Amino acid sequence: SRAQGCEGKVLTVDTMNANVKKVEYAVRGPIVQRAVQIEKELKEGVKKPFNEVIKANIGDAHAMGQQPITFFRQVLALCSYPELLDDNKFPEDAKNRARRILKACGGSSIGAYSASQGIDCVRQDVSRYIEHRDGGIACDPDNIYLTTGASDGIVTILKLLTTGEGRTRTGVMISIPQYPLYSAALAELGAVQINYYLNEEKCWSLDIDELQRSLEAAREHCRPRVLCIINPGNPTGQVQSRQCIEDVIRFAAKEHLFLMADEVYQDNVYAEGCAFHSFKKVLFEMGPKFSSTVELASFHSTSKCYMGECGFRGGYMEVINMDPEVKAQLTKLVSVRLCPPVPGQALMALVTNPPQPGEPSYAQFIAEKTATLNNLAQKAKMTEEILNTVPGIRCNPVQGAMYSFPRITLPERAIKDAKGQVPDMFYCMKLLEETGICLVPGSGFGQKEGTFHFRMTILPPTDKLQTMLRKLKEFHQQFTQQYS
Amino acid sequence: SRAQGCEGKVLTVDTMNANVKKVEYAVRGPIVQRAVQIEKELKEGVKKPFNEVIKANIGDAHAMGQQPITFFRQVLALCSYPELLDDNKFPEDAKNRARRILKACGGSSIGAYSASQGIDCVRQDVSRYIEHRDGGIACDPDNIYLTTGASDGIVTILKLLTTGEGRTRTGVMISIPQYPLYSAALAELGAVQINYYLNEEKCWSLDIDELQRSLEAAREHCRPRVLCIINPGNPTGQVQSRQCIEDVIRFAAKEHLFLMADEVYQDNVYAEGCAFHSFKKVLFEMGPKFSSTVELASFHSTSKCYMGECGFRGGYMEVINMDPEVKAQLTKLVSVRLCPPVPGQALMALVTNPPQPGEPSYAQFIAEKTATLNNLAQKAKMTEEILNTVPGIRCNPVQGAMYSFPRITLPERAIKDAKGQVPDMFYCMKLLEETGICLVPGSGFGQKEGTFHFRMTILPPTDKLQTMLRKLKEFHQQFTQQYS
Repeated sequence: SRAQGCEGKVLTVDTMNANVKKVEYAVRGPIVQRAVQIEKELKEGVKKPFNEVIKANIGDAHAMGQQPITFFRQVLALCSYPELLDDNKFPEDAKNRARRILKACGGSSIGAYSASQGIDCVRQDVSRYIEHRDGGIACDPDNIYLTTGASDGIVTILKLLTTGEGRTRTGVMISIPQYPLYSAALAELGAVQINYYLNEEKCWSLDIDELQRSLEAAREHCRPRVLCIINPGNPTGQVQSRQCIEDVIRFAAKEHLFLMADEVYQDNVYAEGCAFHSFKKVLFEMGPKFSSTVELASFHSTSKCYMGECGFRGGYMEVINMDPEVKAQLTKLVSVRLCPPVPGQALMALVTNPPQPGEPSYAQFIAEKTATLNNLAQKAKMTEEILNTVPGIRCNPVQGAMYSFPRITLPERAIKDAKGQVPDMFYCMKLLEETGICLVPGSGFGQKEGTFHFRMTILPPTDKLQTMLRKLKEFHQQFTQQYS
Repeated sequence: SRAQGCEGKVLTVDTMNANVKKVEYAVRGPIVQRAVQIEKELKEGVKKPFNEVIKANIGDAHAMGQQPITFFRQVLALCSYPELLDDNKFPEDAKNRARRILKACGGSSIGAYSASQGIDCVRQDVSRYIEHRDGGIACDPDNIYLTTGASDGIVTILKLLTTGEGRTRTGVMISIPQYPLYSAALAELGAVQINYYLNEEKCWSLDIDELQRSLEAAREHCRPRVLCIINPGNPTGQVQSRQCIEDVIRFAAKEHLFLMADEVYQDNVYAEGCAFHSFKKVLFEMGPKFSSTVELASFHSTSKCYMGECGFRGGYMEVINMDPEVKAQLTKLVSVRLCPPVPGQALMALVTNPPQPGEPSYAQFIAEKTATLNNLAQKAKMTEEILNTVPGIRCNPVQGAMYSFPRITLPERAIKDAKGQVPDMFYCMKLLEETGICLVPGSGFGQKEGTFHFRMTILPPTDKLQTMLRKLKEFHQQFTQQYS
């Protein structure tokens, strides 16, 4: 009774999980792999028309030179090596925070597993933070789950929601352009991706008619159950108005959709007249008809905003109106992976419970936080302004988040010369080879057919960003000339 | 075109992912939930026949009072707060390790994302560690993937391997008793679990005839493709002989199975005459016929051994003979989650590249490591000895890992009185309520029908472990009397 297929490997690209094959993640795709290779070549002394690769492909603030918040790192050091609690060099409030976190850890060690849902006192910090953020609307720590970055929470909720086969398979509505974690997770889970298009002409705003169109079309072939929103937007940098959020919630209620709100850029709002409104707050301000029925999961992370601590993989999600039996299933599911990284949990406690007025670290904390956010706001503006001076590049205002997603006009001949390669991939690869600038092609996020874009972070230091934008301008002009 | 089922919640236990519902994870199951509740009751002053809950349910060394390795925590503090590099309090070798890790991080910050496969220099440390461990057999850092604990790597490899439908669905052979991460992951992925039974009479040894029996039976209804081994064993504490590993490899080669070797307890070997043999080493010593064909993934973690740093979620896997196209798919897949936690990666660098003779921290490191491992060896012996004095409890030697898995004889009337509850769950729940001792019922790991067990860690401090074993003995005697 020998099995078939005994020649060669057990695991080949033909016999592997077919869903995994469909996964794509452009933020670390072929352009980035080539960028890493080029960096190695530069180190080995290979001559290039540039001296360094500038990685504007990924929202990785520290890698671009942003400094960590001193207070956060002091507490993390104290938690890692509690002998430092006897050191006079550390401010008392940092020591107190470390003592509080350690007391909540098994054996007073961040090396112990925590509860699978996260450390109790950290979940309490998170819930007080949310209450404060949302003007006093109650938040139950029991609805908070700490996660391994926001991605972990997003995938977990999508996993719970994915069921059915064929025409009853779960459909998930995502914006186009989108952050490719979503398409990747849906491919892996075998859920149906339902595209709704953001309106580029209106600063990437979300249009309810378009939601309706996309939903109706999807109902022909799957069962739409989930609506995902990223606000502030990634890769598109728009900030949703309060009105729009209300409309989205009404739509979700009417169409019986589970709402997922990716709000990891909640502190990254730069444009005048824009403000961050959480889905939770708007939902509760709409009254009990909505606040007691609409199911919502909202996600946050330690990786973005002013802290940019991506490496710690800290995050949380809040679930609202989740069926108690499903919540028990969720708690069971996360317990299999034991717990999110405890240093990331500690960091989340600090982000949601930072130094308070009167505490010794307050002034420095506020100074550092403000400087970082001001610097980002300045770079957001500069990026938009310089890009819009280039004929053939049109850039919406970077109202928030960390990215611009300009539209680029590519000459017909360039599209032909790309020879099967996606034209904006061809463009970005050429840009990388000629200038060392590493961007992600718009096709990696999705875009209206026949349009081309790239995503560029605003994270490089101001002077480097300026140089980069100048080089990009030159490149675009040459490219256009060459292919016209 | 309104969808059906618009009443009530979008997400209910009836409309959720059915695979998730099948997931079970006893290590954090109902007994542990009740233990947490009892702890709260004790705090609130509720009278109980005991003063504290002793959690012997989970391999969480620090929570049981084991102290972290000083050197590791010094380096982690230095990495978290590099200002400490100017502090004379830290030994030079700790500073050098921190500098090396920071240099390998984007922007010299552990807050930056790393490469998705893990930081280059950490993967190099891991590969040198493996070469040294395996007597010089080469290890390519390209085959090393850093992970979020070992669990993450195990689930990722199982995910790649899961495919097909009905009779062609991937079958995965796991030992019974098993560590329930495996059954949980298989349930979630919808892969077929194939049980092979370890031989309790022969100290939980692995029998090739039993592998063959279980494989033949499984081929009737699925396509077996994977064989999982845990060595040293969890929950069973056995250490496999070199001969047995060779036989398993021959079997895998003959039957065309992908081998997964869970080797997270590789330093936890206590019994005389036992030694850890890695699957990698044995495979390569068997010559090119095997070493160039058998596909193997082996897993390690920072959570066990002498360091017990569970909270950092550090781990790695080494893949051998993996098809290059599949490897590219694996690298793509892990990139979606961006990277494993960087502090856990740093810790893995230290575990695999600890202080060397001649370095200032060497003596203390060796003293701490040795003391911890000797203490565990002593507790392993004590556990076996005391348990075997109890009529109705029979315990195999705890040769390695951190657990004993004794067989318990339950009176017929207790089995009847359990009323539908699994009898060893009934036993463990009663034990918890009466003594505060928290164990995991054998049914959570799987056991031969009609036999009953529990898993107990050997991690409590020696005096507490002794008290616990004494109480357990009394409880078992009373329980037996009560139901006879």
